[in-house]
Amino acid sequence: MASRPSIPKGTRDFSPEEVIRREFIFDTIKKIFRLYGYQPIETPAMENLSTLLGKYGEEGDKLIFRILNSGEFLADVPGESLSKNNQSALSSMICEKGLRYDLTVPFARYVVQHRDEIVFPFKRYQIQPVWRADRPQKGRYREFFQCDVDVIGSESLLNEYELIRIIDSVFSRLKLSVLIKINNRKVLAGIAEVAGITDKLTDITVAIDKIEKIGEAAVIEEMKTKGISDAAITKLKPVLNISGNTTQKLGALEEILKSSENGLKGINELKTLFGYMENNSLISEVELDLTLARGLNYYTGAIIEVKSTEVSIGSICGGGRYDDLTGIFGMPGVSGVGVSFGADRIYDVLQSLNRFDVIKNQGVSLMIVNFGEKELSYNLNLLTIIQNMGINAEIFPEPAKIKKQMSYADAKKVNYVLMAGEDELKNNEVSVKNMISGDQKKISVDELYTFLKG
Amino acid sequence: MASRPSIPKGTRDFSPEEVIRREFIFDTIKKIFRLYGYQPIETPAMENLSTLLGKYGEEGDKLIFRILNSGEFLADVPGESLSKNNQSALSSMICEKGLRYDLTVPFARYVVQHRDEIVFPFKRYQIQPVWRADRPQKGRYREFFQCDVDVIGSESLLNEYELIRIIDSVFSRLKLSVLIKINNRKVLAGIAEVAGITDKLTDITVAIDKIEKIGEAAVIEEMKTKGISDAAITKLKPVLNISGNTTQKLGALEEILKSSENGLKGINELKTLFGYMENNSLISEVELDLTLARGLNYYTGAIIEVKSTEVSIGSICGGGRYDDLTGIFGMPGVSGVGVSFGADRIYDVLQSLNRFDVIKNQGVSLMIVNFGEKELSYNLNLLTIIQNMGINAEIFPEPAKIKKQMSYADAKKVNYVLMAGEDELKNNEVSVKNMISGDQKKISVDELYTFLKG
Repeated sequence: MASRPSIPKGTRDFSPEEVIRREFIFDTIKKIFRLYGYQPIETPAMENLSTLLGKYGEEGDKLIFRILNSGEFLADVPGESLSKNNQSALSSMICEKGLRYDLTVPFARYVVQHRDEIVFPFKRYQIQPVWRADRPQKGRYREFFQCDVDVIGSESLLNEYELIRIIDSVFSRLKLSVLIKINNRKVLAGIAEVAGITDKLTDITVAIDKIEKIGEAAVIEEMKTKGISDAAITKLKPVLNISGNTTQKLGALEEILKSSENGLKGINELKTLFGYMENNSLISEVELDLTLARGLNYYTGAIIEVKSTEVSIGSICGGGRYDDLTGIFGMPGVSGVGVSFGADRIYDVLQSLNRFDVIKNQGVSLMIVNFGEKELSYNLNLLTIIQNMGINAEIFPEPAKIKKQMSYADAKKVNYVLMAGEDELKNNEVSVKNMISGDQKKISVDELYTFLKG
Repeated sequence: MASRPSIPKGTRDFSPEEVIRREFIFDTIKKIFRLYGYQPIETPAMENLSTLLGKYGEEGDKLIFRILNSGEFLADVPGESLSKNNQSALSSMICEKGLRYDLTVPFARYVVQHRDEIVFPFKRYQIQPVWRADRPQKGRYREFFQCDVDVIGSESLLNEYELIRIIDSVFSRLKLSVLIKINNRKVLAGIAEVAGITDKLTDITVAIDKIEKIGEAAVIEEMKTKGISDAAITKLKPVLNISGNTTQKLGALEEILKSSENGLKGINELKTLFGYMENNSLISEVELDLTLARGLNYYTGAIIEVKSTEVSIGSICGGGRYDDLTGIFGMPGVSGVGVSFGADRIYDVLQSLNRFDVIKNQGVSLMIVNFGEKELSYNLNLLTIIQNMGINAEIFPEPAKIKKQMSYADAKKVNYVLMAGEDELKNNEVSVKNMISGDQKKISVDELYTFLKG
């Protein structure tokens, strides 16, 4: 026999159980997005390469899956371009399209393309797969779903607040305990400005991040090796020692940043945002985290990251404000803010905490035993009655041995098995077996509704 | 300004309204699939080209989108292969993966790959996009969704009956009137066998199809031009004149096919199937249609096709039984039967009949006017109360002019706009505007629940 077929590395098949669990996550997220007035859009899997290239840095460009032009793909390629020394240029000649790498760039493209139909502020969500030619490894796939929620065309901090409430609602609904970390790009920029080293933003945040682990002396040593001057370090010292609750941290930072207009603007944004949260409390823990520096290349205001407090895994949701997302497509000056939920990691967290049991209570299911032609009409009628109650039901398609039929029912994890043979037919009855307890009893067909739905 | 960005031809963006309508179709179909005990699987968008090629005929192979290997895609290509005269072979050297062309081949691959985890009969459904490099035209896209439901590993005709009931349930739920046409490949083979022209199956069905339109004489003329002999035509004449209800048609056919074992087997299958339907009646019309010849290359038993009786459009659902789907992957002798719902065409039918109004009743939505900082805390609290009722609600993110806020609410088609300004605050009230009737009144916050949910 031929060897078994397989799928490309880094991709996955999903079994029925996995699909149902994944749908539970997507549905929960989707319901919350809608609860807050966000609307869904969908974009094609394939985008023009001109839309995708140059948006994710040089490394990102290499990770975009390119689609070979159909038909005579070499027709317009000059002979001299057909060379191994010319692979990068050649790939652009023979491929016009690529698979989307994330949902942010397609969203920006959508907004610009459909600007005349959209009423701003545009609150959209998008739940679709993306593809990356990354080296596959545990927890990293070449095809995975993103769940993005963004509002574009409004600078109000109420949007940041709303997104934090969405995060809070999603994880409460999923019964996951999380820590929501918040920072502000302007504050980070302000710190670098005050220390006179605006080019060393990342080094500073990495250093601040280590203070609790390795202590002040070691952090300062590390900053020196990164080429940060003594003068700058003296100015950074107060930042390293900031502690207390959010109000205290913000107070101390305000003092440090008093000479930086941008920094103070960031402080004010954080004050407003934490002010909203004070008045309308959240279930999740929220903290100001000055070391949070994700997406430093394009975030311009709030930076948000969410971590599980129960399972040690990377961030399970994150995002921030970007001031010029659509500028790359010729529509400048439109500010937006958004977050993305990592469905695969959320799946792993729920899995490792054994929290998928919630899904099992999603309604009754049953199988009717097939006894053969004589009882078939009675049993098909029974099936229709039960399905009309809205109960997932099936009859085994063949009059196979009872043992085979029962092991099928077992494998499918139905709640009940119904049996109506010769005896039951006579009395308009049916035997019902509870597949969890193993209990079995005869009831009349009229009692079925109360039994199954009661 | 740069020209607006666009998407590859044959692909589509879906606006919020379109996504919600499409989801309504998918959800309806999915609920029915589950009601009948089918379980979802999902497979990757990319399959190995070795899985896809050779399964759809020579024309089909050309329509598969190929994905360029990542990185140094020319590294292993011999220099002499880099030639314009060698495009087809070259494309297989530089591409290992392709986008799935349908859901049937990935399903067959899934079954063989996971045969040890699957309990047969395996009842699965799959709702995912497929991609084809077809020439785009009205109603034909390069990316579109298929909704497939199949049972594999059972030869029982109860499966065919179940699929017909699923079709009946889906279209009843969508409030669409349809005609379900049924044929059997064995009957078609029997007719050709009796006439002694087993190689002219398609010509025969095309001819039978035209009898009502052009009459017997013209049909016979056409058969002659196709090279069908006079002797064969004499034998076919009785088939051309078959009429009456299903029982009468089957009776007449049985007489004609009495010398063909295969033909009689087909008749018996049809008799059994129509017998099931007689005892458990359907809402949709069902008819035996001898001209139905879809998928003649791989169907071996039942052939099913569904047409709208209200809108003139191609078939909106179809399928049949195939006796050896998994044989191509080295697992022979597993019979299956399935149908596929054409979501895009169903969308078009619902659209042209203006039947999407059902969706509007999917719950209340509202917007709270933003009056500015002074009333903000009161209004944010109001928002939380309303969202906790499960009602989709949002506050306009900025204290913009009322006119701007109202036109946003209008565009978003919310049911109510809530206003709580200085006056309302004093009395713990809120003004509620019904956006359809235009009525506006003040109610207390305590009355909100009854007003919105009552």
